[in-house]
Amino acid sequence: MPDIVDLLRSRRSVRAYEDRPVAPELLRRLLVAAMAAPSASNSQPWEFVVITRPAILERLRSKLLFARYNAPAAIAVCANLRIAHNSAARHYWVQDCSAATQNILIAAAGLGLGSVWIGVYPLPSVMAPVRQVLALPEDVTPLSLVYVGHPTEHEPPNGHDRYEERRVYWEQYEPRKRRARKKNAKHE
Amino acid sequence: MPDIVDLLRSRRSVRAYEDRPVAPELLRRLLVAAMAAPSASNSQPWEFVVITRPAILERLRSKLLFARYNAPAAIAVCANLRIAHNSAARHYWVQDCSAATQNILIAAAGLGLGSVWIGVYPLPSVMAPVRQVLALPEDVTPLSLVYVGHPTEHEPPNGHDRYEERRVYWEQYEPRKRRARKKNAKHE
Repeated sequence: MPDIVDLLRSRRSVRAYEDRPVAPELLRRLLVAAMAAPSASNSQPWEFVVITRPAILERLRSKLLFARYNAPAAIAVCANLRIAHNSAARHYWVQDCSAATQNILIAAAGLGLGSVWIGVYPLPSVMAPVRQVLALPEDVTPLSLVYVGHPTEHEPPNGHDRYEERRVYWEQYEPRKRRARKKNAKHE
Repeated sequence: MPDIVDLLRSRRSVRAYEDRPVAPELLRRLLVAAMAAPSASNSQPWEFVVITRPAILERLRSKLLFARYNAPAAIAVCANLRIAHNSAARHYWVQDCSAATQNILIAAAGLGLGSVWIGVYPLPSVMAPVRQVLALPEDVTPLSLVYVGHPTEHEPPNGHDRYEERRVYWEQYEPRKRRARKKNAKHE
């Protein structure tokens, strides 16, 4: 296993998968990783639905415009405030479930699997079909859907990463740096 | 470096730190890790303020009830929709910045550092002092504050982890399992 930062840097969203299942033991390890995430006051407001049945995966694909990838497995990361250990989850469940989602992605990368994070919450047009296909009750909220599988191709490390010095400030935010940046930036 | 899932499982919130600084090169690696996080449509809506000056750390500590730890460094993970690469950030910046925060925590663990995630957004009582101390402009929103340092003690792995079978459903949500659980659960 590489250095942790190299592993994090090499992780990529994978959208094409081999036509073979993910071993249940690997899926279980992804869930262990997910539940090892931190949460506000350790409230652990999460539940997970693991989907491996082709018919259900196909139903998801047919209803989700941005999730039409051929992954043999998916994990829906959901929030359920009724099983959270305390009320901190009320404010922080999105962050807690995002940390759990990110742990799944990192664990997948470290285990040689590919994955991609499909955003579900807060868009009603994505949440509704996920709710319906997975039979989620009203008080269980799907935050994300993570597709998992064996990647068909391993992208070579592209030599650079997403690190951008201009996004880093030291000690305090510097309006001067900000103004200088605005003159040159494309996206502002 | 251990297996990735073991690393994720062994990560703990660290609240007591040695009285020595974190090398700038290590802080930079944490930022590389942060910016390697996925974001919705790759919008990368994040900015980071790294704090190492004792006077500023002390000002944060004095104003934040739940952040009075003696870390020699902190990284504020902020969102700035004006520098995001596209409008997906409008819906997903909390999740994107949470993934970046989680990457910092994991990188720290892998590099032998300790860290703890202080929730900032969405509580105005926490956001206001962070904004003030770090001189954040109105359109930059602090999501989290991560304290970083060399841990004074390494907690031994506690033999179990946070994995809970009852939080996992296969293929679809099962109301039956849910009902059975409710009878026994403490927190429902």
